[in-house]
Amino acid sequence: MQVSLAALRRITTDITAVVTVADDGGSSGRLRRELGMLPPGDLRKALSALAAEDGSGHTWARLFEHRFGGNGALAGHAVGNLLFAGLLDVLGDPIAVLDEACGLLGVRGRVLPMSVEPLDMEADVTGLDEDPGAVRTIRGQVAIASTPGRVRRIRLNAVNGQPHPPRAAPEAVRAVLDADVVLLGPGSWFTSVLPHLLVPELRDALVSTSAQRIVVLNLVPQPGETADFSPEQHLDVISEHEPKLRVDAVLADSDAVPTPDRLRAAASGLGAQTLLDRVAAAPGSGKHDPDALAASLTAALERRTDRWP
Amino acid sequence: MQVSLAALRRITTDITAVVTVADDGGSSGRLRRELGMLPPGDLRKALSALAAEDGSGHTWARLFEHRFGGNGALAGHAVGNLLFAGLLDVLGDPIAVLDEACGLLGVRGRVLPMSVEPLDMEADVTGLDEDPGAVRTIRGQVAIASTPGRVRRIRLNAVNGQPHPPRAAPEAVRAVLDADVVLLGPGSWFTSVLPHLLVPELRDALVSTSAQRIVVLNLVPQPGETADFSPEQHLDVISEHEPKLRVDAVLADSDAVPTPDRLRAAASGLGAQTLLDRVAAAPGSGKHDPDALAASLTAALERRTDRWP
Repeated sequence: MQVSLAALRRITTDITAVVTVADDGGSSGRLRRELGMLPPGDLRKALSALAAEDGSGHTWARLFEHRFGGNGALAGHAVGNLLFAGLLDVLGDPIAVLDEACGLLGVRGRVLPMSVEPLDMEADVTGLDEDPGAVRTIRGQVAIASTPGRVRRIRLNAVNGQPHPPRAAPEAVRAVLDADVVLLGPGSWFTSVLPHLLVPELRDALVSTSAQRIVVLNLVPQPGETADFSPEQHLDVISEHEPKLRVDAVLADSDAVPTPDRLRAAASGLGAQTLLDRVAAAPGSGKHDPDALAASLTAALERRTDRWP
Repeated sequence: MQVSLAALRRITTDITAVVTVADDGGSSGRLRRELGMLPPGDLRKALSALAAEDGSGHTWARLFEHRFGGNGALAGHAVGNLLFAGLLDVLGDPIAVLDEACGLLGVRGRVLPMSVEPLDMEADVTGLDEDPGAVRTIRGQVAIASTPGRVRRIRLNAVNGQPHPPRAAPEAVRAVLDADVVLLGPGSWFTSVLPHLLVPELRDALVSTSAQRIVVLNLVPQPGETADFSPEQHLDVISEHEPKLRVDAVLADSDAVPTPDRLRAAASGLGAQTLLDRVAAAPGSGKHDPDALAASLTAALERRTDRWP
């Protein structure tokens, strides 16, 4: 997420990050358990990625990302998470909190949660038993992201009393419907990218928006979530989770695609053209270069077919 | 402290609050023990007292004063204290942290710590033993403020490795030397007012400044610290702690002074005139009315002798 925001801010000032709120680990998980609040970590990271690059906004972004040291009750808490928790107590509305934080950090654009309720993630996972077909349900984002098994399917629930399907933040739905371009990925495929298809109103908006939809693939499979996944399998799981979603373009690093024909076929199945480009920070680094990614996105957006293979 | 700042902001925008940093209780004490940092609580209260009264600054002041609920690791922490801790980690310099916070809260004036080191307070206390003259040393602001004995004398140490006499924040010394008016009190006499006379460089500045020095007495004796203290005894302990300090005016509520002649005599001993006025929010409330206090301070500052008894 951070790298796509870093790339996007090179192209436009009109960015809305719609962020997963299912984290249950680390500082966010502790706050969620202690205060019953929306886990702030991924929201905080999006704010920091869009923060001003100098001046007071930059100082505040550094503060947001700073974690307390020592070995006491605060150790490991990100200051931005605590500030989010305090603002949420005072203002009540997470959207208002995020808008206040955007002002403080001089954020270029806007950051929204996919839902204003904390979400719980569960996954069907195979490969955990001797029977390779046996499916177990694994609960919680941290457990899913680190499972040694293979994630087959994920679901999201809002848990406020009884579990119920998550309601989307209306502002997030509106942002998707009003967008010119919607970007999915890169990021943790099951725990950060696919969740956007699992909140019914947000999924409907992604399916029906007139925006150009671009999927940016990861550079390397992620241990746990997508170990041994080929690039095309990343697209397959999108279809499996939401068959109605159409995509305009799939952007991947040429070095990360061993069988371009298979990727093109999978992309075609989603209605998408495939753009292979060099977008890695360094070969094998697993990290995108924001400038290269910005250039590729610009090419994709301008449908400059000369750059398409 | 808060009420005198509330009164002062009605008179001038050029206010510097110089604040004790010896707190060892509550949220501040927990942060001090956990992170070895300057206790932020009294600084935070001064910031809030001088914060903007509406708009974003007001929201941030509410946030600073908000305390986390629940029963977990954060319960009872004031958000402003945590934010101060984070900013101190990031910026390193407490003066820079306070200036940043002043900007955030739209503070009218400036807030400075008397020292940039956390200070430890100790007091000679009588009345704790059967022998009424037996003197015990009580350590820590909370213990001193709540002792059932009688505080006779207090001392301050900086404790950074070995105890040593506290060094003043140079900005605080400069503010006292450059001031037109210096206000001492009202507030917890031994733990908030007298400490300014126990940091050598700050004491020297208070003794030598050309500013008009005004002492504002408390409305009621404080349990523990000054139980059974008469108004004049409040002045006596100032002399006992720093005989060289001269004062221009002593301001007290007329209902809180049973023996005006004795108070005038004690004030004369400090070189001060006595102004008796009605400055309580309500009779017996123990709280000053900021508007009334502002009017009395203005009278004292203008040396409008018609209002002097």
